[in-house]
Amino acid sequence: MTESHGRPAGPETTRIAVDLLGGDNAPAVVVDGALLALDADPDIQLHLVGPWEVADEVLAVRPGRCTVDAVPAAVGMADAPSRAVRHPTTVRAAVAAVAEGRAHALVSAGMSGAVVTAAALGLGRLPGVRKPALAALLPAQANPVVLLDVGASPELSASVLLQHASLGAAYATRVLGLRVPRIALLSIGTEPGKGDRARRAADEALRANQPGYVGLVEGGDVPMGGPADVVVTDGFTGNVLLKGVEGAFALAGGVAPPRQVPRAAALLGIAGTVVVCHGAATGTDLASGIALAARLHRNNLVEVTSS
Amino acid sequence: MTESHGRPAGPETTRIAVDLLGGDNAPAVVVDGALLALDADPDIQLHLVGPWEVADEVLAVRPGRCTVDAVPAAVGMADAPSRAVRHPTTVRAAVAAVAEGRAHALVSAGMSGAVVTAAALGLGRLPGVRKPALAALLPAQANPVVLLDVGASPELSASVLLQHASLGAAYATRVLGLRVPRIALLSIGTEPGKGDRARRAADEALRANQPGYVGLVEGGDVPMGGPADVVVTDGFTGNVLLKGVEGAFALAGGVAPPRQVPRAAALLGIAGTVVVCHGAATGTDLASGIALAARLHRNNLVEVTSS
Repeated sequence: MTESHGRPAGPETTRIAVDLLGGDNAPAVVVDGALLALDADPDIQLHLVGPWEVADEVLAVRPGRCTVDAVPAAVGMADAPSRAVRHPTTVRAAVAAVAEGRAHALVSAGMSGAVVTAAALGLGRLPGVRKPALAALLPAQANPVVLLDVGASPELSASVLLQHASLGAAYATRVLGLRVPRIALLSIGTEPGKGDRARRAADEALRANQPGYVGLVEGGDVPMGGPADVVVTDGFTGNVLLKGVEGAFALAGGVAPPRQVPRAAALLGIAGTVVVCHGAATGTDLASGIALAARLHRNNLVEVTSS
Repeated sequence: MTESHGRPAGPETTRIAVDLLGGDNAPAVVVDGALLALDADPDIQLHLVGPWEVADEVLAVRPGRCTVDAVPAAVGMADAPSRAVRHPTTVRAAVAAVAEGRAHALVSAGMSGAVVTAAALGLGRLPGVRKPALAALLPAQANPVVLLDVGASPELSASVLLQHASLGAAYATRVLGLRVPRIALLSIGTEPGKGDRARRAADEALRANQPGYVGLVEGGDVPMGGPADVVVTDGFTGNVLLKGVEGAFALAGGVAPPRQVPRAAALLGIAGTVVVCHGAATGTDLASGIALAARLHRNNLVEVTSS
């Protein structure tokens, strides 16, 4: 089903598979995002996964920079995530393109549970990783903050928190360029002993074993930044906090441009580069997700997180 | 240790016990808050609990409207909450004033764990309540939203979520004046089945039994408002979300005045009216907490939540 158009990708070119049907406002915003991303970075090519007539809206404008994998079906928000792997959906096809080397990374604004399930099955987890994590970037007073997990693994467990601290540290070295990122555990007070049982156990273990660990931080330290570069929490709390902070920014009229960050989360712990955008993503958000995916591929994210 | 000053309280007067030593910036901000609250409402009197020389700063300005309970010791942020009940602290004395009928309600910006512990022991829990809840009010697009629990009970449990839904409904009838408030459960997606095990179990039970239940909402629905008047979650997630939203508002430059709400949380499920302010509360926040306590007492909050 794959057809190639235009010049072959050179050695410097990064090819990103894009799920044309993922997101509440797909395919229109995905087409917008694809065009914005191609204009912003001359060294990327896109592997467009979705209905031919949608892909053609991008191809018609930028004929030399896309391949197409014609797939008609998406995963709906009310579908079980398993639909993404059992049926020939755009998410499954985008994952297959990465697994088979036809693309270097993939971007989807589809249901994140479906993307996580399809990626874990199609690309495999990194050695020793029990649960993958979605790592978001949040704007903050000074530098952006990495928050993880924001929804890949909603059940709370101390051992998963420890693993995600280590994945988050590797991610921050690549995406924020920090040698030893400051890692914190999210809790409901900053003194040791604050929080629930799982948090108290994880705090103790991180103090003993995690390089760069600075201790507990509170919800306000994520948007305000300051004590930590990476904030670790369970996928339930992280998802709630991310959406709450985004909603508060929206209600208050937004964050000024110098503090804007990609509105996209990287899936960590998977043997492939996968970026998930918010279901309500705009074209600009999709473009920032495609740019993030290209950056993570070029910076060898998978190699770093698996070491 | 209690000394009365000025005219006796009339039948219309509400007397609020105020912890002069609670909060990061106590006692200065508490003195400011006490004076602001007295100026704003001629029908309240304050029962000032703390060092005599601090109480005197309020007494000197408004001699006819205060009583004093001279107590020198506070609970520090690093102390165990049990210190609040084992030692003669300002929190314990303020709780005793309510228990013994010398005050109608109490307000503290001290460590919330200490206030909750002291109140549960000194005032008792309402019949059938296993875990008390702290209910915060958040500004939102339209009407304010009640979020609970924001930190009284950090361990997740489906049965506690159900009980807190019912306490939150009673609270919203009193503080927002709604006949049947719309109640929602916080999760990481709005379709049934989203979230962790405890959330899925609670969602099912609430659908069957909770009047006004509208289903699942996400983190962004708390600051944006819309689907629900009351949003129920565990004390860990609620605390993180509240502080995250407040931090985002601060980073984005704040919320416009018509949307401002009391920055104070009511302790529900306790046989007495107790309001907890943020540790970093300002004088204005303390004054809004005192006004909220007076309003809850006048609206018979305890009677409504225990029915």
